[in-house]
Amino acid sequence: MSYPAIDEQLSHLFEPKSLAVVGASNQKVKWGYIVPANIITGGYRGEFYPVNPKETEILERPVFKSIKDVPGEVDLAVVTVPANHVNGVVRECVEKGVRTCVVISGGFSEMGGDGERMEKELTAIVSGTGMRLVGPNTMGIYSAPVCLHALMPPVRPVPGKIAFAAQSGNLGTQMLSLGKALGVGFSRFVCIGNEADLKAADYLEYFADDPETEVILLYIEGLRDARRFMEVAEQTSPKKPIVVMKAGKTAAGARAARSHSAALAADETIFEGVMKQTGMIEADTTEEMLDIAKAFAAAPLPRGKRVGVLTWGGGWGVVTADALAKHGLELVDFPAETLAELDEVLPPYWSHGNPVDLVGTLDLSMHFRCLEIVAKCSCVDAVISLGTMGATSSFQSFVVEGPMADEISRLKPRVVPSEFIKQLQLTDEAYRDEVIKLMAETQKPILAVSFPTSGAITPMLARQSEVVIYPSPERGAKTLAALYEYREFLERNRAMV
Amino acid sequence: MSYPAIDEQLSHLFEPKSLAVVGASNQKVKWGYIVPANIITGGYRGEFYPVNPKETEILERPVFKSIKDVPGEVDLAVVTVPANHVNGVVRECVEKGVRTCVVISGGFSEMGGDGERMEKELTAIVSGTGMRLVGPNTMGIYSAPVCLHALMPPVRPVPGKIAFAAQSGNLGTQMLSLGKALGVGFSRFVCIGNEADLKAADYLEYFADDPETEVILLYIEGLRDARRFMEVAEQTSPKKPIVVMKAGKTAAGARAARSHSAALAADETIFEGVMKQTGMIEADTTEEMLDIAKAFAAAPLPRGKRVGVLTWGGGWGVVTADALAKHGLELVDFPAETLAELDEVLPPYWSHGNPVDLVGTLDLSMHFRCLEIVAKCSCVDAVISLGTMGATSSFQSFVVEGPMADEISRLKPRVVPSEFIKQLQLTDEAYRDEVIKLMAETQKPILAVSFPTSGAITPMLARQSEVVIYPSPERGAKTLAALYEYREFLERNRAMV
Repeated sequence: MSYPAIDEQLSHLFEPKSLAVVGASNQKVKWGYIVPANIITGGYRGEFYPVNPKETEILERPVFKSIKDVPGEVDLAVVTVPANHVNGVVRECVEKGVRTCVVISGGFSEMGGDGERMEKELTAIVSGTGMRLVGPNTMGIYSAPVCLHALMPPVRPVPGKIAFAAQSGNLGTQMLSLGKALGVGFSRFVCIGNEADLKAADYLEYFADDPETEVILLYIEGLRDARRFMEVAEQTSPKKPIVVMKAGKTAAGARAARSHSAALAADETIFEGVMKQTGMIEADTTEEMLDIAKAFAAAPLPRGKRVGVLTWGGGWGVVTADALAKHGLELVDFPAETLAELDEVLPPYWSHGNPVDLVGTLDLSMHFRCLEIVAKCSCVDAVISLGTMGATSSFQSFVVEGPMADEISRLKPRVVPSEFIKQLQLTDEAYRDEVIKLMAETQKPILAVSFPTSGAITPMLARQSEVVIYPSPERGAKTLAALYEYREFLERNRAMV
Repeated sequence: MSYPAIDEQLSHLFEPKSLAVVGASNQKVKWGYIVPANIITGGYRGEFYPVNPKETEILERPVFKSIKDVPGEVDLAVVTVPANHVNGVVRECVEKGVRTCVVISGGFSEMGGDGERMEKELTAIVSGTGMRLVGPNTMGIYSAPVCLHALMPPVRPVPGKIAFAAQSGNLGTQMLSLGKALGVGFSRFVCIGNEADLKAADYLEYFADDPETEVILLYIEGLRDARRFMEVAEQTSPKKPIVVMKAGKTAAGARAARSHSAALAADETIFEGVMKQTGMIEADTTEEMLDIAKAFAAAPLPRGKRVGVLTWGGGWGVVTADALAKHGLELVDFPAETLAELDEVLPPYWSHGNPVDLVGTLDLSMHFRCLEIVAKCSCVDAVISLGTMGATSSFQSFVVEGPMADEISRLKPRVVPSEFIKQLQLTDEAYRDEVIKLMAETQKPILAVSFPTSGAITPMLARQSEVVIYPSPERGAKTLAALYEYREFLERNRAMV
């Protein structure tokens, strides 16, 4: 007997037309209430069936005694019953012909002993049936195209192009939440859980051909099927960038990983080799996971390592120059014609080189023109623009604050009048649009750095998925190096084919 | 003829009883208006004298034709006249007996040629007079105890215990602004400028004995007087931690530094040696400058490298374990009695080790008790607490958002009811107070990590200078390593004395 390919199998998981929650409840402190409440309030529009032998109505929907009583097909069953009831429920799901299961319930191999035994049984129940299973011990899944928030925490991610599979529920869902604060959008998310059936490699394979996904993000503590993972990664990397944070790399980390997810810590040297060979891009820190993934989602890849830098302040330019050098990128020497073009725009005392110091001017039209000159320079492969985009937020924090607010108001005009801020905001938006236009026109990445202050980078939010903006030059430079690393992999790979 | 020690000289700079702005103006686009407006609206309460030969009233104060016309003593003259008038003005200041000068005006050695010549002349004018001079080409100074904001950008820093000297005005003032967003307070700030007179070492020497300062932060591109700087650093480090970001470390960075500040790039190998030998603590990135400085200002030093970790989610614990190992710190094995104490508080299935996984519970009283057990454990030198402090902000972002807000409201109670958030906020505040109390009681650092989301970490703000909270475990671990590095230096130093 043959079953559909993983793509078709997982399409029922991530785009279910009908969904049951087995173990649904009216008790608001139970996951059986919280998870379906997240699904309903998250905007899921497919068929929704709560299942509970003792209730009649949950979240204003009629309740079914058993999954078998549900009329018609069930693409996805979310299971929240206690561990000792899970296997019975999953067996019924198989009998019903349910296509995919997400077992939220914990109490399996992560507990050892009986839990381990139950998980083996669970694997056996599912094996060979064609039904695929996420978990157990998972915080659930998210899928942007169908507004599916089958998650324990009530996260509402920004929809986007990044698919994310995480071997940690807390870390995964908090990254979704952090993404929201930073304007990083996700297409799909899965908390991998104990991998009784579906494994990291399966999600990777699905994301590889998923038209909703352009970037794949993985948080990995240990691989249960390293060989297959490597094969899938090798096939996927030439199609889409895979950004990986590998935790448990140190002895202490590996030990912590074993206690928490029962994952097998991969041999670190093997994993490093796999990363390089398969073209996966490593994120060294949790912050880098989003820093790098969002750049892949929004910016073209640099064709080389020659970077042009625009800075609104000399010191930041120095820091950026250091960071670029540290990551193997090159602060390009501008050709004579580019210097001449910049000479026409900037006052005579400008820095006459790269970084281009925008001499502290508030006349932002100068910034626009310099950005265009640098981005279009044939010797430049990528641009970092410091301080201009997001400038509103820097100035916002200066307006009418502190103990002297009254005196400031009396001494009209204020030091930074609100009209100035409004003007700055309009310019900010225009600069953002210019960056987006120039990235499309030149097919070069233009990364912005804006120093976070108490003001929000509000003008960015309207087109947040189309720009990349970092809180420090070091993070921008590191990200650019990651984009270049992937570009180099693609070149090598193309040469080999 | 002998002059007062640097401490007395610079006390007139940072705590002036009287202040003149030479070049004050009513034209609101000029620094001659913006700088005095910052001073007045910033709350400076000393005598304030605008000086301008052509005006009669500026910012509601009577104007003097010349600095010489000002009645009584002038502790500080801020000079904003164009470069070609600066030397004449400074000569008059010397004749008047002004004690200190801040020359905002640019157009000196950073321009080369004539500017260089003028700066040499400026140095000669000041030399041997007893008047001390900041700049030229400086963005100014800030001093918390007297509410002095003699700055070009209208920054209003949080008052605190960190004194900051920066060889970049933009970077320096934006760090003050960033500090405000992150709750990092400053006692003094000086944008060092071209160092025609006062040099980095002079500010360091003043901060060393400044009772308002507990931590010294330096942004250095190049040293003009490396030997003296080293001597002062050597004397200062045993008294107060000196956190240094050294920019221009790469060839590209050094070149950028020369073009922007005309600073001499120090020989990198010499600088590295100086850092280690003198016990200065290096910040590798701009973010680390504040990360590390704020920890020194708020937390006791760890007596050893044994760290206890509390985590609200397994994955974050793994990441923290890796980060601690990477920075040479140790995830301590708890002794049997500590495990037994934790057993009494946590459910039977807890991780039974370090990190202590707080099993996703919302019962925060459990977190309190675990924190106390771990902090008081005699084998623990430092604690990292993940996810608990600042938890409000994580949950805030879940409340009534998105397209389904109406439906959420209809389906009462909401997924996360606002009463729950209020309750969480109170607990957050109580946990913050507990951390502060336990740090004082145990004299061990307790660093918190809270994952930033769209909600603000509001409960922290009330006692923001007393706690340290990081947006990622990696940044918390790196900071803890810096605290430990300094502690080790103090031990070595004590052994040698």
